[in-house]
Amino acid sequence: MPVTIKARCRYDGTDFAGWQVQPGQRTVQDELEQALSRIVGQQVRIAGSGRTDAGVHALGQYFSAKLPDEAPVEDLARALSKMLGPEIRVETVERVSDDFHASYSSIGKRYRYAFYSGPLPDPFGARYAWCLPWELDRGLLRASLDALTGEHDFAGFCSSGSSAKTTVRTIYSIQEREGPVVGPADAPAYWHLEFHGSGFLYKMVRNLTGTVIDIARGQTRPERLRELLEAPAPYHGFTAPAHGLFLAAVDY
Amino acid sequence: MPVTIKARCRYDGTDFAGWQVQPGQRTVQDELEQALSRIVGQQVRIAGSGRTDAGVHALGQYFSAKLPDEAPVEDLARALSKMLGPEIRVETVERVSDDFHASYSSIGKRYRYAFYSGPLPDPFGARYAWCLPWELDRGLLRASLDALTGEHDFAGFCSSGSSAKTTVRTIYSIQEREGPVVGPADAPAYWHLEFHGSGFLYKMVRNLTGTVIDIARGQTRPERLRELLEAPAPYHGFTAPAHGLFLAAVDY
Repeated sequence: MPVTIKARCRYDGTDFAGWQVQPGQRTVQDELEQALSRIVGQQVRIAGSGRTDAGVHALGQYFSAKLPDEAPVEDLARALSKMLGPEIRVETVERVSDDFHASYSSIGKRYRYAFYSGPLPDPFGARYAWCLPWELDRGLLRASLDALTGEHDFAGFCSSGSSAKTTVRTIYSIQEREGPVVGPADAPAYWHLEFHGSGFLYKMVRNLTGTVIDIARGQTRPERLRELLEAPAPYHGFTAPAHGLFLAAVDY
Repeated sequence: MPVTIKARCRYDGTDFAGWQVQPGQRTVQDELEQALSRIVGQQVRIAGSGRTDAGVHALGQYFSAKLPDEAPVEDLARALSKMLGPEIRVETVERVSDDFHASYSSIGKRYRYAFYSGPLPDPFGARYAWCLPWELDRGLLRASLDALTGEHDFAGFCSSGSSAKTTVRTIYSIQEREGPVVGPADAPAYWHLEFHGSGFLYKMVRNLTGTVIDIARGQTRPERLRELLEAPAPYHGFTAPAHGLFLAAVDY
């Protein structure tokens, strides 16, 4: 009988071509599968809670896999982390029921998008925050975030390349928070958004972020938000850069 | 009449051979001098508040320089930052009295030394914290830090290569603090020490840190601290790695 595992990992996405295996590219899924296959002695495929794009980071990504019965589950997190470079860490591995699947079993996700307000990137946050040289209307930002909260058809915020069956998603909350996600603890110019939702479409968080920042800096009319909530895919606006985005947690 | 300036800068020391100009090496002082010389149109030398070693970071390093009368002091911080790569930022530049010197005028310094408690480095802190895989006796650590506080002859903690006239320094306080100096905001395994003193000898903070961690993990007898406070230079114990150290502030 194969054993089903649920694993939590974190990674610095800077030097990866994203989560998903792609021929000839360095991806997180590929490095995890290679390490796992070497440990259990046979080819193993893993399923992530979802793809993260090239350059996107994860503080709490999950994956599931079926392993041979005799696989050393207890020591697996440590063994995998030791085998991987410092950019990926496997934090926990647990046995779960056979019907668990990291993507299909997920009931919610949290993403954080990090900003640095200043004319030029900070030395300690250049890899982990989008540098915003513009004055922002924070009232307009808050109103835009509130307009996005709730159940909507987010097709108009979905980049082409999605395979989702439905484009309806619920955003439970979008919180504005002081401080970096990763960066210097005492620099007041860092802040971030935390998106909590039932799920997110392809590039949806980066497209939402690009739009609300464009509105808050006076580059886009606030009415554009409503229009995009009624528009079909694909999104044609500005996509916030990958390096500011973190998959923070997955709810099961 | 030349103008004297006082400038504050921050840098990620990872890819530098330290602060001080060295032939054939990439150093912070060299990059700042080259940029400054290009802006004012003549060769400029700068004086740092002190050297930082290869790999050591700065959140608040200061330097002084004499510039020609017509130098654009008001716009200099921005102009320098734009000319430099993302690893160095000049935050403020101000005119000061002619007798100001970033090193000689300094009356105190703050250093932070960052740790990550875990078996393997964290993806988001590998560059900015010393990973400690050992169990520590935190009571012994606190007692060691208290024993170092005050005025002492720190010759026994000074690495060879120092040119200091006296090896007597005063440590005002060493605080233990939760959280990283640079790293993920929500990871409980990060913590750091903040050293505030009148000044620090060559590699003194890294040597103090190496010794107190060796004591706290049971590798070194606690009495060794007293012996080192009475020993002559140079230090022969363990030197904590450069990448965990940050020059946080200089008092004038």
